[in-house]
Amino acid sequence: MNTNPVFSLYIPTRIVFGCGEIKRLATEKLPGKKALIVISSGTSMKKYGYLDKVIELLKENETESVVFNKILPNPTKKHVMEAAALCKDEKCDFIVGLGGGSSIDSAKAIAVMACNPGDYWDYIPAGTGKGRPVSKALPVVAIPTTAGTGTEADPWSVITNEDTKEKIGFGSELTYPALSIIDPELMLSIPPHLTAYQGFDAFFHAAEGFIANCSTPISDLYALEAIRLLYKYLPVAVADGRNIKARAKVAWASTLAGLVESTSSCTSEHSMEHAMSAYYPQLPHGAGLIAISEAYFETFRNDCMKRYMKMAEVMTQLKSNRPSDFIDALVRMQKECKVHELKLSDWGIKMEDFPKMVQNARDTMGALFTLDPRPLTDEEVLNIYQKSFK
Amino acid sequence: MNTNPVFSLYIPTRIVFGCGEIKRLATEKLPGKKALIVISSGTSMKKYGYLDKVIELLKENETESVVFNKILPNPTKKHVMEAAALCKDEKCDFIVGLGGGSSIDSAKAIAVMACNPGDYWDYIPAGTGKGRPVSKALPVVAIPTTAGTGTEADPWSVITNEDTKEKIGFGSELTYPALSIIDPELMLSIPPHLTAYQGFDAFFHAAEGFIANCSTPISDLYALEAIRLLYKYLPVAVADGRNIKARAKVAWASTLAGLVESTSSCTSEHSMEHAMSAYYPQLPHGAGLIAISEAYFETFRNDCMKRYMKMAEVMTQLKSNRPSDFIDALVRMQKECKVHELKLSDWGIKMEDFPKMVQNARDTMGALFTLDPRPLTDEEVLNIYQKSFK
Repeated sequence: MNTNPVFSLYIPTRIVFGCGEIKRLATEKLPGKKALIVISSGTSMKKYGYLDKVIELLKENETESVVFNKILPNPTKKHVMEAAALCKDEKCDFIVGLGGGSSIDSAKAIAVMACNPGDYWDYIPAGTGKGRPVSKALPVVAIPTTAGTGTEADPWSVITNEDTKEKIGFGSELTYPALSIIDPELMLSIPPHLTAYQGFDAFFHAAEGFIANCSTPISDLYALEAIRLLYKYLPVAVADGRNIKARAKVAWASTLAGLVESTSSCTSEHSMEHAMSAYYPQLPHGAGLIAISEAYFETFRNDCMKRYMKMAEVMTQLKSNRPSDFIDALVRMQKECKVHELKLSDWGIKMEDFPKMVQNARDTMGALFTLDPRPLTDEEVLNIYQKSFK
Repeated sequence: MNTNPVFSLYIPTRIVFGCGEIKRLATEKLPGKKALIVISSGTSMKKYGYLDKVIELLKENETESVVFNKILPNPTKKHVMEAAALCKDEKCDFIVGLGGGSSIDSAKAIAVMACNPGDYWDYIPAGTGKGRPVSKALPVVAIPTTAGTGTEADPWSVITNEDTKEKIGFGSELTYPALSIIDPELMLSIPPHLTAYQGFDAFFHAAEGFIANCSTPISDLYALEAIRLLYKYLPVAVADGRNIKARAKVAWASTLAGLVESTSSCTSEHSMEHAMSAYYPQLPHGAGLIAISEAYFETFRNDCMKRYMKMAEVMTQLKSNRPSDFIDALVRMQKECKVHELKLSDWGIKMEDFPKMVQNARDTMGALFTLDPRPLTDEEVLNIYQKSFK
């Protein structure tokens, strides 16, 4: 905290946390009487019974529901528009996002398009978006079944425009969830590699938010606790997915990292990853971040030395006297989570893709580059990509 | 954090923090067009120009205002009722609480009584109160000029019923301030002894909230940071009131301790103090807490040993291996702030008052005794009072 920090804190989401707390959906005051439940195109929400449970709990709470089940891992504008049309046809008065970040982020975007005319990209204030003002949105209830995005505790929604290959985060005070229920029991069945990808997404929300030049005393508090918890418990959750204590700690860390996104910001690491997964939608967001993280954080090693040492200290619980202690701890954590050897080429990325990704990262999420500890040149950005390539 | 913590987080207050940020009153979206400004009966709000400044900034924001200037250090139900009548007569649509906890707490109670019939005590769910439900309240804007109560970040309002000698805290989600502007520059003129009393009030919000049996992972985070900051900076602010860095750290710690009150709770130390200042309204709340604190925390020394050691560690930044390290650090901090030798008798309190205070504490704020680390007997409560008597 500087001598004269100026900051604000306003997070109007009601966060309910705890194992088994999904049951609260039957008793909490809900923001309407008919919900559009948004889930992914995958099978897990049905297979594990989460969808049926949510429908049933809503019914106990005298709330009808309709399901939209087409959301992709990197969710698209097309599906946002399609679901918003369904929402209007069915006269739903709120949206339930159930699943990973893709479903909850989509729920927020659908909530916007259920109340505003035109195309979703008309409202995006970056890239080829038109930046029209959003004056209202339906309320959203977020029920995460993964621990990573933090979207349950922030206003952001990341949607890909398939036509223009833009993957852009957008949100406003209107898109904070009205209610978020985080029940770690819904996360017990996530396989180890996804647990690691998602957990590192949360880790980078916290670490980027901690080195961002817009960090604040409150975001620092959330960030360091998220970093501490993830370093300690993510390897445990990866090794033993049934360990409910580790799952709960990782889930809480992910929500804390969402609070960081609400009070500080991601930095350009996220812009760089979005560019990769905009071109290669099969690349999981967390995997993309992990792949570039060592080179990314190495770049700023001498720009915020005290903050690197502070992160190292909460991770290792040892006094740190050099910023590279943080990089060492990060690499150690990646090795323990068995994600240190990720190859971008396994997802089809080619060395020659990187120049256009530099441009895409600047064009679509350029604002985050202004929040880095210092401005990066295009050459440095290219370097980070190239050093990360395997 | 236990293996299975269940907790929630919902703080709908927009908190704006920073030196000079009072100016934001001219630009923030306000919850109405005509404000009742509630200030104390003292002279400081006028002497330091804060009242004029607030009236002028509201005017810049196209908002009229009316002033109620009778609030006492231990605010009374009578003034709440009188101000609520003025508010209705003047058709004010929100309340600005400007000053210490007494003015902001009163603003919340006035906000309730401006929208609900009958007497304020009809709504108090403890003591001789009737516990009727409160269904609405006017919005409140909180502008603290002291650092201690945390009322800017919690829903609580402590009002004294002069007739029944009851001093009771009450609030609900309706009484969270809509907007709180915390500007440490407004705190530069607080004299050393009041700086210490108020700062220790914040300290005990955090320390009680940390040992309360309803503490949560989020309240722990806020509490430990408040405790760390106050131990380090309160003695600095007491010694040199013009030190703006120390003032800012203490102000932020006080707001964090308010967040603790919103996510955990005070314990019976507060009930015991309220009983004293209900009978002796000249006793400053913080002074009463300081006077009983050593005996109070000594009583639970072996009941939450790890938590005492954790508090000692964030205070001293040294490894702790015995819970009494916390008591030692607390006493040291009181000595540094020149408040270790407070005499309750200086405010007229007599040894023979204590039995009726035990009863009063149970009758009016009995609920907080259920949140102590373990249940106290009446004999133990009496002992704490008696040991604290000088």
